[in-house]
Amino acid sequence: MPTRNATSGRLLYAQSGGVTAVINATAAGVIEAARARGVAVYAARNGILGALREELIDTAKESKAAIAALRHTPGGAFGSCRYKLKSLEANRAEYERLIEVFRAHDIRWFLYNGGNDSADTALKLSQIGKALGYDIRCIGVPKTVDNDLAVTDCCPGFGSVAKYTAVSTLEASLDVASMASTSTKVFILEVMGRHAGWIAAAAGLAGEGADAPPHLILFPENVFDEAAFLAKVKATVERVGWCTVVASEGIRNAAGQFLADAGTRDAFGHVQLGGVAPTLAGLVKGRLGYKVHWALPDYLQRSARHLASKVDAEQAYAVGKAAVDCALAGMNAVMPVIVRNSDSPYRWKIEPAPLAKIANREKKLPRGFIRKDGFGITAAARRHLAPLIAGEAPPPNGKDGLPAYVQLKNLPVAKKLAAWSPDKP
Amino acid sequence: MPTRNATSGRLLYAQSGGVTAVINATAAGVIEAARARGVAVYAARNGILGALREELIDTAKESKAAIAALRHTPGGAFGSCRYKLKSLEANRAEYERLIEVFRAHDIRWFLYNGGNDSADTALKLSQIGKALGYDIRCIGVPKTVDNDLAVTDCCPGFGSVAKYTAVSTLEASLDVASMASTSTKVFILEVMGRHAGWIAAAAGLAGEGADAPPHLILFPENVFDEAAFLAKVKATVERVGWCTVVASEGIRNAAGQFLADAGTRDAFGHVQLGGVAPTLAGLVKGRLGYKVHWALPDYLQRSARHLASKVDAEQAYAVGKAAVDCALAGMNAVMPVIVRNSDSPYRWKIEPAPLAKIANREKKLPRGFIRKDGFGITAAARRHLAPLIAGEAPPPNGKDGLPAYVQLKNLPVAKKLAAWSPDKP
Repeated sequence: MPTRNATSGRLLYAQSGGVTAVINATAAGVIEAARARGVAVYAARNGILGALREELIDTAKESKAAIAALRHTPGGAFGSCRYKLKSLEANRAEYERLIEVFRAHDIRWFLYNGGNDSADTALKLSQIGKALGYDIRCIGVPKTVDNDLAVTDCCPGFGSVAKYTAVSTLEASLDVASMASTSTKVFILEVMGRHAGWIAAAAGLAGEGADAPPHLILFPENVFDEAAFLAKVKATVERVGWCTVVASEGIRNAAGQFLADAGTRDAFGHVQLGGVAPTLAGLVKGRLGYKVHWALPDYLQRSARHLASKVDAEQAYAVGKAAVDCALAGMNAVMPVIVRNSDSPYRWKIEPAPLAKIANREKKLPRGFIRKDGFGITAAARRHLAPLIAGEAPPPNGKDGLPAYVQLKNLPVAKKLAAWSPDKP
Repeated sequence: MPTRNATSGRLLYAQSGGVTAVINATAAGVIEAARARGVAVYAARNGILGALREELIDTAKESKAAIAALRHTPGGAFGSCRYKLKSLEANRAEYERLIEVFRAHDIRWFLYNGGNDSADTALKLSQIGKALGYDIRCIGVPKTVDNDLAVTDCCPGFGSVAKYTAVSTLEASLDVASMASTSTKVFILEVMGRHAGWIAAAAGLAGEGADAPPHLILFPENVFDEAAFLAKVKATVERVGWCTVVASEGIRNAAGQFLADAGTRDAFGHVQLGGVAPTLAGLVKGRLGYKVHWALPDYLQRSARHLASKVDAEQAYAVGKAAVDCALAGMNAVMPVIVRNSDSPYRWKIEPAPLAKIANREKKLPRGFIRKDGFGITAAARRHLAPLIAGEAPPPNGKDGLPAYVQLKNLPVAKKLAAWSPDKP
């Protein structure tokens, strides 16, 4: 067992937003690095909500083997949440409550593992801590399958969903190619990526050349052009015999409407999507008459730890470890990001970057990554994306053919404060 | 290179119906076994249509390495088809054409790799050969993700889709469990299995116990009971905090209507399905108010060679090899099937069974495999299914993080006959 060193205080780790296949690898990086430095780690149950509710988990109660197994277990081991703190001005009480919980449990370092919303929360918290006279170091830890965080070369979680998408596109295309003579001619795969086409672009790694799948990628960065789409599908079926389309869930028409707008919004205010693929399938079937199949893997794509990218799993662990290093070095309001030194071989390192440059920003796919015709990726995109899906990092095999994923005990820390209610700030 | 032995004649191999992650392993078994016996193998391009059209592929032109690589390549390497021959009475000319092609190319053994429709075709062909005085041995080779062939313990292709379904159910459930506090509470996974709930049942291997996912399985063998479904989802969310539902594409209401009837039919006359998951999601959202996500992996599930079951890959290869053994031993109108000797450890062997006992029959999930409440699997089902997803058989890793799948040359055999037209029998 690690011993507490002279440094006073505990480190609090929380997971935020949509989970990934490798967010727990980051948790393992955090906990193992902190243990090695003799620092106790609490985890917040269900992200920032656990901190607000004083629902803390004592990770010291987890065995070394259990923490190591987080490296290959998908989902969020401590629970995550979609909960966006309001601005300091709109709800200062929430920030004060967090500082109160930190003070009660001697939390001196807060590591928030999430996307651009979470970077914003960590940044604000670092400011209010100073204002309230409580010494708290807030570190953002990058995570998002959408790969849309600013500054960092890529986001842990993205490489694995990218690999899932590329492999699935390849495999399903082999299926369609064999059946096209008498059956399905067009296959449509809907992928995540609300406003940035990174995941859709990754499908382009499945093949290279005009006749290789995917034959069309529909990016959220482009306005959906129905006529051009149908013409390209038709030309592809006539030339190749079949056609694979990969569509981002976030594609919109010229009026700016999502093709699959379900009309609901999540807690961050994002429009809830789902159903671009059936919409496009209906279009192809109705206008071109081809038999169409479509797939919508949804959470399967971001939880597919069995098919994780080795690079992604390594980076996820590395940012966790680096976040602890940043925190214990006394840094505040930073995020350890991935810096690319070279494409091939892919060389990268971790460096701290200011949260102020990351919070609430969104990195779209560069225009130079989208082919001139709008339906594929460029050589530059390929150079950038290919290393991110490289290598395999399969989980150990459990009994009966399932991967051996770990379930933590998640034992609660005794509460010291009165209950918190969001309605009574 | 193998040498032709004294036996005259060639063997024709054709793939039929929906392809699987391991149908090419069967092709490898056929070709390698035939080569070892000095027998030349032609493959029909796009299944029985290639035989009718005299579009034959000379597999001798493929390298030993390429054939070996078929063992780990999904899709149908020679093309498959959905084309059901009419009855002998209704279109005798088609059967006569096949015999004519066989005669022209000295085809003495015909191996048809498919489901119950294909078994029927092989059976009829064996009869007409005799009637026309042409000595042809017809062997059915089992294949179908639906696992609904009679006699055999299981069908090559099923074990891998079963493993994909169980692993995906587990992984997505870890995702949902981490988010349920503030986000998705119900996750619905739609799986294949038109009339038999084998694939849906395999999802049950993801977890054991009342609170483990999947919490509900909707079998096509049961009438969909909306009230019972909603009550069970509600009770699960209230008890566990979230709920994973796995639904067969083929579930029907009390009136016998498919919940997701798209109203179209394929060439075999099967109703084309797709969209049970969004239908159920709408129901849950509308009636219970929970946030719902759903996934419809479609072809991804049956082409996921990266996640194949080792047992399945081995059985797929073994039935191909055994089919050659049956053919060269002079058998006719048989199918090599898998016979289970024990559950644990799983012991199996291959034995020939008469096609007459298999053609056009459909093996449903035994009632004893469905739990009394209708929403889960029994211990008997678990004993039966668990061994079928056991073990991993990962494809070799190619460059840039994709599996190394093979693309055959598929060089055509010179035609000897006039063109065939289905309209001019």
